[in-house]
Amino acid sequence: MTQKLKIAVAGLGVVGCGLLRLIAAQGDHLARSGGRPLAVTAVSARVRHRDRGVDLSAFHWYDDPVAMAREADADVIVELIGGSDGIAAAVCEAALAAGKHVVTANKALLAMHGQALARTAEDAGLALGYEAAVAGGIPIIKTMREGFAGNRIESVRGILNGTCNYILTSMRSTGADFATALTEAQELGYAEAVPDTDIDGIDAAHKLALLTSLAFGTEVDFAGVHIEGIRNIRPADLRFATELGFRIKLLGMAEKTAEGIRQRVHPTLVPIASPMGSVEGVFNAVETRGDFVGLSMLEGRGAGADPTASAVAADLLDIASGRIVPAFGVPASAMKPAVSLPMQGHVGAWFIRLRVIDRPGVIADISAALRDRNISMESMIQKGRDPNEPVDVVMTVHETRESLMMDALTSIRSLDAICEPPHLYRITRD
Amino acid sequence: MTQKLKIAVAGLGVVGCGLLRLIAAQGDHLARSGGRPLAVTAVSARVRHRDRGVDLSAFHWYDDPVAMAREADADVIVELIGGSDGIAAAVCEAALAAGKHVVTANKALLAMHGQALARTAEDAGLALGYEAAVAGGIPIIKTMREGFAGNRIESVRGILNGTCNYILTSMRSTGADFATALTEAQELGYAEAVPDTDIDGIDAAHKLALLTSLAFGTEVDFAGVHIEGIRNIRPADLRFATELGFRIKLLGMAEKTAEGIRQRVHPTLVPIASPMGSVEGVFNAVETRGDFVGLSMLEGRGAGADPTASAVAADLLDIASGRIVPAFGVPASAMKPAVSLPMQGHVGAWFIRLRVIDRPGVIADISAALRDRNISMESMIQKGRDPNEPVDVVMTVHETRESLMMDALTSIRSLDAICEPPHLYRITRD
Repeated sequence: MTQKLKIAVAGLGVVGCGLLRLIAAQGDHLARSGGRPLAVTAVSARVRHRDRGVDLSAFHWYDDPVAMAREADADVIVELIGGSDGIAAAVCEAALAAGKHVVTANKALLAMHGQALARTAEDAGLALGYEAAVAGGIPIIKTMREGFAGNRIESVRGILNGTCNYILTSMRSTGADFATALTEAQELGYAEAVPDTDIDGIDAAHKLALLTSLAFGTEVDFAGVHIEGIRNIRPADLRFATELGFRIKLLGMAEKTAEGIRQRVHPTLVPIASPMGSVEGVFNAVETRGDFVGLSMLEGRGAGADPTASAVAADLLDIASGRIVPAFGVPASAMKPAVSLPMQGHVGAWFIRLRVIDRPGVIADISAALRDRNISMESMIQKGRDPNEPVDVVMTVHETRESLMMDALTSIRSLDAICEPPHLYRITRD
Repeated sequence: MTQKLKIAVAGLGVVGCGLLRLIAAQGDHLARSGGRPLAVTAVSARVRHRDRGVDLSAFHWYDDPVAMAREADADVIVELIGGSDGIAAAVCEAALAAGKHVVTANKALLAMHGQALARTAEDAGLALGYEAAVAGGIPIIKTMREGFAGNRIESVRGILNGTCNYILTSMRSTGADFATALTEAQELGYAEAVPDTDIDGIDAAHKLALLTSLAFGTEVDFAGVHIEGIRNIRPADLRFATELGFRIKLLGMAEKTAEGIRQRVHPTLVPIASPMGSVEGVFNAVETRGDFVGLSMLEGRGAGADPTASAVAADLLDIASGRIVPAFGVPASAMKPAVSLPMQGHVGAWFIRLRVIDRPGVIADISAALRDRNISMESMIQKGRDPNEPVDVVMTVHETRESLMMDALTSIRSLDAICEPPHLYRITRD
């Protein structure tokens, strides 16, 4: 095994360049860990001549990454182009068809086509590595696939999108509104120019769909994920949450029940002192519960050139060492169809903030709407008094079925005194 | 690869029985994950007939575990006997000599003989798995060996002993003294009848020595670990630490500097709001810093039958799948000699609690002893006033060289007004 592992890199954005820097910087170290040297042989990107701060002269250049996947003198194609279809998919398919291993950071692609790609890779005896696709700085794919393989996983959840966590942390600590915090995140490079995939929860849902399959051995079912983003969160929500002892985090959660699996991504109140509550800024965290291992949590940087490059390198070293593992831990052919449960059946607690006209009887009307559905109020705060002007009324309610809560909300929304759409968030206490 | 992986288990204490339960409970699941079934073929323990709650009738019984390691019809010997020498060492050596893989939870053995065992295993192309030896519920061995293999690790530190963390958590939250908290931990099964190895920091040091080798690719050097335990911690120390915004944790820490590696295990003040500060009870946590991955933290149960069995199962599945990795990530022959630095050169901040007779001039004398060594005081609290009676004086000092602090302490200790040996703890702020 002294033959070099030959690597072709498709896509030279921040992660691609980070990977080239890592391989250049850690040559001897990688050779010792992987049992043989890693050598980049070819690269491809949209624009050839651009100052990337890395020297490409030693690599074979391809204008067409699909041609590179097919023809390059490489054992592995690293796909860092992104996007759920189109060229990224074509690169991965061409690589596998040409007998080359694939390593990718592309969660969108895997959330859509992971099942098919895993099967193609396995049939050909090739690796499909994607440690970099979920929480780059956290070795969660390897941990779930190998470290916790002796367990039946009961649940997995996490802060899976660093952009959202940064924005929420910033809104809470500075009092800034969503638009300001987003702009700041964009200026710092923590949010994309077109940030929708992140802030609407899609990116977290892509990652959750992969974790769900790893956790439960079920086929990837992105369509089964209930998704809500963070766009409508107001500074007042964060302020009142803090007052009640909570942080608001965009969590991705998958739980197994007797009926099926519930996958959901939405803003969630978690206790400030809980492990998730203390994960701030661009950090990600994933918490798993297994029948033997119990509760465990992994925390680290979610994105960025270097942590993502580190994750790609781990996949490359696995391949260099001959550790070829089924993409989802169990053979793709053995994965069971996913039975995704709708949110209506979910039972949980809620935080509700209403803007109401401060006049007698309002609270009684709201309380009645809850009482009529057997929803039990836990706490209620009315901030200030301002007769006949809008004030905030914040309440938390005990565990209730989602469909009942939605029903109560319809009724509350129709009250005359309610002067803007209610803000409501699910609470998780553990 | 449909041949069963045949397993012989030496030692049927809580972990051994936990492993038998796990393998019995997860048969199909393990076969899918490992690519072939895991089958226990033989067991050995000191006492044959004892109600362990598991059925041993299907397994070949050996009175002598060394004979089992040599002769049993098994691919892997799981060593769960414990102890740094004697029978555990003989079992592992006999197994490797007989061409059998070894999986062990024995940190004491590996801290002493890990280097030699790793080399023997590698020469024979066999696995030496020890995920269960460090923080059972945290896949830290695999993470450092494979997940972070693309990084140069800069530091690793952790709460590595659940017994100590439980006792410290309990003392802080109930105000109990050390002896009471220890007795309670023993009653709950969180501390051994003879608890010295845990409470004196030896167990944490065994684990740290292994993490150090994984982190830096240096030979295992248990003798190079500076070790202090938690025996002398008083409720007052925890109370004042809280008042200043800190928790006291028994941390194991290894840092790389230009001169060498400093390995230390000692009670440490960490900020309450820091990731380590929020790891409570029997939980363990390990924080690593790598040049590309940055900071990451893994948290989970440190011990107990089930989490440890889960870790053993992960090693067995690696072997079943043919993933044989050098024990310390790099070939044992490529590991560099350890250059362990003494504590005298360490630079850090301190928390000092003194019992002093409350009379004029005492604080001036203490302050002078610090000033004379250029040690800069950060804060000082004297609790209450009680002329000519003992009172607590608590102070924190800024970063200073350890040797200077020890020198100042000698001088402070000789003051007439000091009425019991000073309590002092190092502070880490990040």
